[in-house]
Amino acid sequence: MAIRRELAKTGRTPSSRRKSREALEALSPRRLFDNIEPDNARLILLAAIGVFAGRGYHAATTREIASALDLSPAAVYSHFPTKADLLFEVSLRGNAEIVRLLKVAVADVEGPVERITAIVRASVLWHAEEHISANAINSNFRFLNEEQLAPIMKLRREATAMVQSEIKRGVKAGVFRQLDVKGATIALLRMVDIAPWYSETGPMTPERLAEVYIDLILHMLSANSPPGNPA
Amino acid sequence: MAIRRELAKTGRTPSSRRKSREALEALSPRRLFDNIEPDNARLILLAAIGVFAGRGYHAATTREIASALDLSPAAVYSHFPTKADLLFEVSLRGNAEIVRLLKVAVADVEGPVERITAIVRASVLWHAEEHISANAINSNFRFLNEEQLAPIMKLRREATAMVQSEIKRGVKAGVFRQLDVKGATIALLRMVDIAPWYSETGPMTPERLAEVYIDLILHMLSANSPPGNPA
Repeated sequence: MAIRRELAKTGRTPSSRRKSREALEALSPRRLFDNIEPDNARLILLAAIGVFAGRGYHAATTREIASALDLSPAAVYSHFPTKADLLFEVSLRGNAEIVRLLKVAVADVEGPVERITAIVRASVLWHAEEHISANAINSNFRFLNEEQLAPIMKLRREATAMVQSEIKRGVKAGVFRQLDVKGATIALLRMVDIAPWYSETGPMTPERLAEVYIDLILHMLSANSPPGNPA
Repeated sequence: MAIRRELAKTGRTPSSRRKSREALEALSPRRLFDNIEPDNARLILLAAIGVFAGRGYHAATTREIASALDLSPAAVYSHFPTKADLLFEVSLRGNAEIVRLLKVAVADVEGPVERITAIVRASVLWHAEEHISANAINSNFRFLNEEQLAPIMKLRREATAMVQSEIKRGVKAGVFRQLDVKGATIALLRMVDIAPWYSETGPMTPERLAEVYIDLILHMLSANSPPGNPA
């Protein structure tokens, strides 16, 4: 109903509206907001990640997000009273999804090498396929106020702690070498966030990228015997 | 003279002005803008990196940058006509300095392991000590217009090409293993940019961080025989 009302205002046809919907849905191939209701709220979040990832949170305006949907700014405010609420919702969902993905990735996997492999694969695939939401979140979440930042940071610390405990476990088991666990954790997390430079038009598929990063990270942790090592 | 005139306007004393100057100079421990004249232009750039790194380019206002210096916005505009000019100047200097640092780092160094070690050390130290300017640049430079972006991208490509050719050379020499050179280059560049999470109050000194990253990256490239490798 809101859609029809807004369309009547702008004079756009339902078919141009549908086209815009498909373009918006392509911004999140994993359908991060699929269970958000009503439909307009879901579409607003999709428009928001596009704008936050592109021009950045502070440069983005509610008007711009609304116009991507042929909605009025007031229609956006009715679902999300402030621009910060949009960033909060996106950041919360994205970070919660990463924690969920990491848990799923290692759920039935034994052994430090296999578990790190699963974590790196899941993370690289996420950051490639969801590079728009990842950039929207990672470039901007720190601009949230303290209260909204707290649950986001909790999720991020949870993901970091998972990776750190996997590396630690591997070191204890003698599968990974003695190394600076905290440094290696941060290095791994930075490496798998390929979103800032990933492009669908680049030469590597997400799957190929995941293999490249699994190789680099396992060698970094010395889980494999490196081929052609002269030392 | 401009300083005194502006001070007269705000009623601040020269001593509070001097205090602010010291705080500003601490933002760039390597004195990135030291050869910029006149002095006010140099101080404006220091204030700009503080504000760009903190609240981001788009949220930053010229008024805010000016008030960090007890100057009027007009006094800032007289040196830098637009906020984009400030970001451009900071980005140009920062990226040119990294290219210079990398060249200096490998100038008298032979051997792929030694050259990569020198590159990683120089990069980590830079990103730790100059974390404010690094964050100001890396979080924001992509918001520059095409014309201003071009020389920045040229410098960044130059730094990337240097790292890539060092890795390639090491692979050819059989010192590094056969790996995805482009993937390894991006991984290395992401790892050494510790600025987003580095803190002077953290447990590791820049020197210690450099050693940790040299260790991780050389293992990633398999330049060393990893101790305690069970495979």
